[in-house]
Amino acid sequence: MTSRELGLPMQVASPEPGELPAAVTIWEVGPRDGLQNEKEIVPLDVKLEFLHRLADAGLGVLEATSFVRPEWVPQLADAAELLAGLQRAPGVRYPVLVPNSRGLDRALESDVRDIAIFASATETFTRRNLNRGLDEQFAMFEPVVRRAVEEGLTVRGYISMCFGDPWEGPVPVEQVVSVGRRLLEMGCDQLSLGDTIGVATPGHVETLLRAFGTAGVAVDRLGVHFHDTYGQALANTYAALRHGVSTVDSSAGGLGGCPYAKSATGNLATEDLVWMLDGLGVKHGVDLTKLVETSVWMAERLGRPSPSRVVRALAS
Amino acid sequence: MTSRELGLPMQVASPEPGELPAAVTIWEVGPRDGLQNEKEIVPLDVKLEFLHRLADAGLGVLEATSFVRPEWVPQLADAAELLAGLQRAPGVRYPVLVPNSRGLDRALESDVRDIAIFASATETFTRRNLNRGLDEQFAMFEPVVRRAVEEGLTVRGYISMCFGDPWEGPVPVEQVVSVGRRLLEMGCDQLSLGDTIGVATPGHVETLLRAFGTAGVAVDRLGVHFHDTYGQALANTYAALRHGVSTVDSSAGGLGGCPYAKSATGNLATEDLVWMLDGLGVKHGVDLTKLVETSVWMAERLGRPSPSRVVRALAS
Repeated sequence: MTSRELGLPMQVASPEPGELPAAVTIWEVGPRDGLQNEKEIVPLDVKLEFLHRLADAGLGVLEATSFVRPEWVPQLADAAELLAGLQRAPGVRYPVLVPNSRGLDRALESDVRDIAIFASATETFTRRNLNRGLDEQFAMFEPVVRRAVEEGLTVRGYISMCFGDPWEGPVPVEQVVSVGRRLLEMGCDQLSLGDTIGVATPGHVETLLRAFGTAGVAVDRLGVHFHDTYGQALANTYAALRHGVSTVDSSAGGLGGCPYAKSATGNLATEDLVWMLDGLGVKHGVDLTKLVETSVWMAERLGRPSPSRVVRALAS
Repeated sequence: MTSRELGLPMQVASPEPGELPAAVTIWEVGPRDGLQNEKEIVPLDVKLEFLHRLADAGLGVLEATSFVRPEWVPQLADAAELLAGLQRAPGVRYPVLVPNSRGLDRALESDVRDIAIFASATETFTRRNLNRGLDEQFAMFEPVVRRAVEEGLTVRGYISMCFGDPWEGPVPVEQVVSVGRRLLEMGCDQLSLGDTIGVATPGHVETLLRAFGTAGVAVDRLGVHFHDTYGQALANTYAALRHGVSTVDSSAGGLGGCPYAKSATGNLATEDLVWMLDGLGVKHGVDLTKLVETSVWMAERLGRPSPSRVVRALAS
């Protein structure tokens, strides 16, 4: 099955900058990116109910879990059990993060059809995250992507630290574009441009997106992934939509990191995104009421309130 | 003294939509709009230190207090004492909200040079707030504005409920433009377009701003005033900046209402705005470190953390 048949918006003409897309694919990362930093292990049945409720709320892409080594991310050590217990809703995609060939084996054993790999735009973060250099990361991903494509999977390439890096400061857009092009040439269907530490602002977003356009990358190959550390996530998303981006990562209830800590790494809340898309008249397919109910339910499981403004306003 | 001599950006050519202004005037509303709903009376010396610290942090417009009747807003009953004790920093403006002729008398006695009046875009809210109809509000403001202009004061016209109203739903842009034009014709120097209940989204903002342009109102007569009830305040601000708006209301630390209540009426946090402006390369004159220190200090006085993401990220 190709990415086109799976409904990925791969061959749509790029809109002019300034036009909004008619519809947006919300790439829900709460079950994976949102939960992976939770210290206390969330029970398997809670994770499954979370995924089932998100699908019922109309989300069409649910990044379900990760096949990283369990000792690295204990929270997601139950990936195989989760996928075995998951009732996959018709038309919903359940991508899974896959770090290496062993992870791909496990994903294939679990009948995963969409995977994501996690690359970085900076030398320092690549070294810290993968224990290898910026260029060396491609050697690690290449066999994974090749085999995934052969198996008919879709492959998303996350690029972390696309705007700033805690050690290197601002990241040159050329460097991000270079990493992105190599991932696409390798066989990735789509990139997710991540502001891992939340330092992006809308002008920087536009500059990066324009640089990808200049390098010949169609805007429909690009997703955006913002964190709300400095409150910029939704403004950045709006800038990306204005540029024609139609895939946006977000996390139900803003799950991900603690909003009260220094490294406040909360993701853009899906509810706040949905509120904006509704106002803009951009289609998304999500039932906001069901989504808010799900986030309130999950917040009770985790024992702390959702940082999403919409959840707080609608649920209180 | 005219508004021009006071440095209001009144006669700058309107930029094309899509251009960012080179500089933004941040209209700091924390001391008035931020504090007015605080249940516990903030001591006068705390209010004064707040204003002195905000001026020291580089904010050039500080809405200091309000001459509403003390029984309506007990928190601001000390307006005359506050203005008597205030050490006015050179070049800083300290506008004061003035509801009626009696309020203007009191403002003039306190040597106020800039006032603001508080109009509404909807019939229901005007009735509830002023106990008169949408059109009747002008009869109330007219003598106040006329005399203020004669006295050489600048007059800002707030328009509340510019996007949605809890009783009437979405507010027609023509209605907002009509109210705004009447306020300008009456002698107001500038309008502040308020999203009192936080329901605006960026496309609605652009539509309203375009409608003012079509009606012949220059964009430099318009300020924007967003609340973050649904997390949209900064995205809305970005849309307004893209349209050429160069006066933005915000509140240090996001003061104003309780972010955890249903009617979460928190203002856009000045720190989150400053972060975005820095990223966009738009000048603002504020020292972010001093501002964050001030908001942390004020949060300690109020006994609860600031809802500003930037304050939380930088102060922890």
